[in-house]
Amino acid sequence: MASLLYSRLRSRVFCAPERIINVKIVFIGAGNVAVHLSQALQNTGFEIAQVYSRTETSARGLANLLQVPYATSISRIISDASLYIISVSDDAIEPLTGSLELADRLVVHTAGSVPMDVFAGKLDNYGVLYPLQTFSKSSPVDFTGIPMLIEANTPGNLQRLRMIAETISQKVYCASSAERMQLHLAAVFGCNFVNHFYHLSAQIAQQAGFNFDVLSPLILETARKAIASGNPQQMQTGPAARGDRNVMDKHMELLAAHPEWRTIYAMLSESIGKTKK
Amino acid sequence: MASLLYSRLRSRVFCAPERIINVKIVFIGAGNVAVHLSQALQNTGFEIAQVYSRTETSARGLANLLQVPYATSISRIISDASLYIISVSDDAIEPLTGSLELADRLVVHTAGSVPMDVFAGKLDNYGVLYPLQTFSKSSPVDFTGIPMLIEANTPGNLQRLRMIAETISQKVYCASSAERMQLHLAAVFGCNFVNHFYHLSAQIAQQAGFNFDVLSPLILETARKAIASGNPQQMQTGPAARGDRNVMDKHMELLAAHPEWRTIYAMLSESIGKTKK
Repeated sequence: MASLLYSRLRSRVFCAPERIINVKIVFIGAGNVAVHLSQALQNTGFEIAQVYSRTETSARGLANLLQVPYATSISRIISDASLYIISVSDDAIEPLTGSLELADRLVVHTAGSVPMDVFAGKLDNYGVLYPLQTFSKSSPVDFTGIPMLIEANTPGNLQRLRMIAETISQKVYCASSAERMQLHLAAVFGCNFVNHFYHLSAQIAQQAGFNFDVLSPLILETARKAIASGNPQQMQTGPAARGDRNVMDKHMELLAAHPEWRTIYAMLSESIGKTKK
Repeated sequence: MASLLYSRLRSRVFCAPERIINVKIVFIGAGNVAVHLSQALQNTGFEIAQVYSRTETSARGLANLLQVPYATSISRIISDASLYIISVSDDAIEPLTGSLELADRLVVHTAGSVPMDVFAGKLDNYGVLYPLQTFSKSSPVDFTGIPMLIEANTPGNLQRLRMIAETISQKVYCASSAERMQLHLAAVFGCNFVNHFYHLSAQIAQQAGFNFDVLSPLILETARKAIASGNPQQMQTGPAARGDRNVMDKHMELLAAHPEWRTIYAMLSESIGKTKK
């Protein structure tokens, strides 16, 4: 009995749910990340106290979704919240921070490529909470498996951020600004460039009279195999990996009318060939 | 009652399952495609009568899997099967066809980039059965959703192939040799090049001390969104799509030690930028 009580107490001290849930959060920005992150935090029980966006439509849209007040003027941002999450375009973070009067509140941004130091000298308590995922307003998001990269200016702030992040995600990692930017670059290769190749493949399939969905099973299987293997290089197939000059020449001929695609084909095939060696 | 009988008869004539199942198949080649396609056909009830490969280990491996006889010499290939599926490397199809003595049997290959005419003048009944998927020996494959592209030298042979393909896949399409090669090229962009980008992103993440699996949710979501939208271009995100010169410059700096990745980054970003316009 005593040990059960102890373990309960220990778990309460460890997770401190009531302390976390009492965190009052203001969202500064109402873009894709803000829309999904704010809902995830609210669904976990956090109080989203206010939404700010200089664009009234965006501010009102997210505020309605969350059923909370909104502001469109920086001076109207409430000052008694305990966490301010800045989720605006990268370039807007620095100028915005200069205008905030938030004394010692904890302020974080959610950007992959903006160093934490953007806050240095302007705030006492700050950090970064970066979800490594691609967000669209229309698609619902389950944060449980999304890697959350956190960074803060003090161990105490890092611990606060970690506790908050762990309520919505099972994958919370500490990452320095340099590491986060490197991961953001990895995401450009693994997501943005990959999606552009989906687009190019859709265009090419269309020239044969087929819709993009003819490629769906192939695309899903390629992603599944790369992830299951943990090592995409091992899974590399195709003419460039086999060094099949004959097929590559035929493909280059087919691309004659599209010099850009042709250059991309040649460059990627060369890169795959080098990787295999 | 009469109408029920008619509809049953009609359906039997249409699908003719007993006639199809009686098709006796020989697999010439024992690579990844042969391994999965032969199992799918056998599981549907077709008789795989023999496996041929000039490499004894491969021939025996697949023959054991299917519990059927195998041959390693072309002269030992049985001549009384009704369908011969050639699933060897592209370059090997033509020389192999010259050595086959199969009179009027139906012979097909499974290659994306080899025209059906490779058989012209050598055989009476021929065609192509191309599954648009990436196969690894180790991963089991469900053919139900895999697009099967078929082509044959006569309407009768096309119909026979269609009936066989439809027993394992719900997505059977007719495609000319030119269309099939175009789709194979689309597959290189949507699968082989995409997988190479997974590899590059894994390398970049590793430089920040992270394993490839940190990118898994992002990779799966990117594929899911592109497919759900049916139009990957609409789903394009990232610095190049936003024209965010600032972030792109930072990324180019990070890639300073990797001139090849840098060139790929610049070229892809330019291509994405053009697409957006």
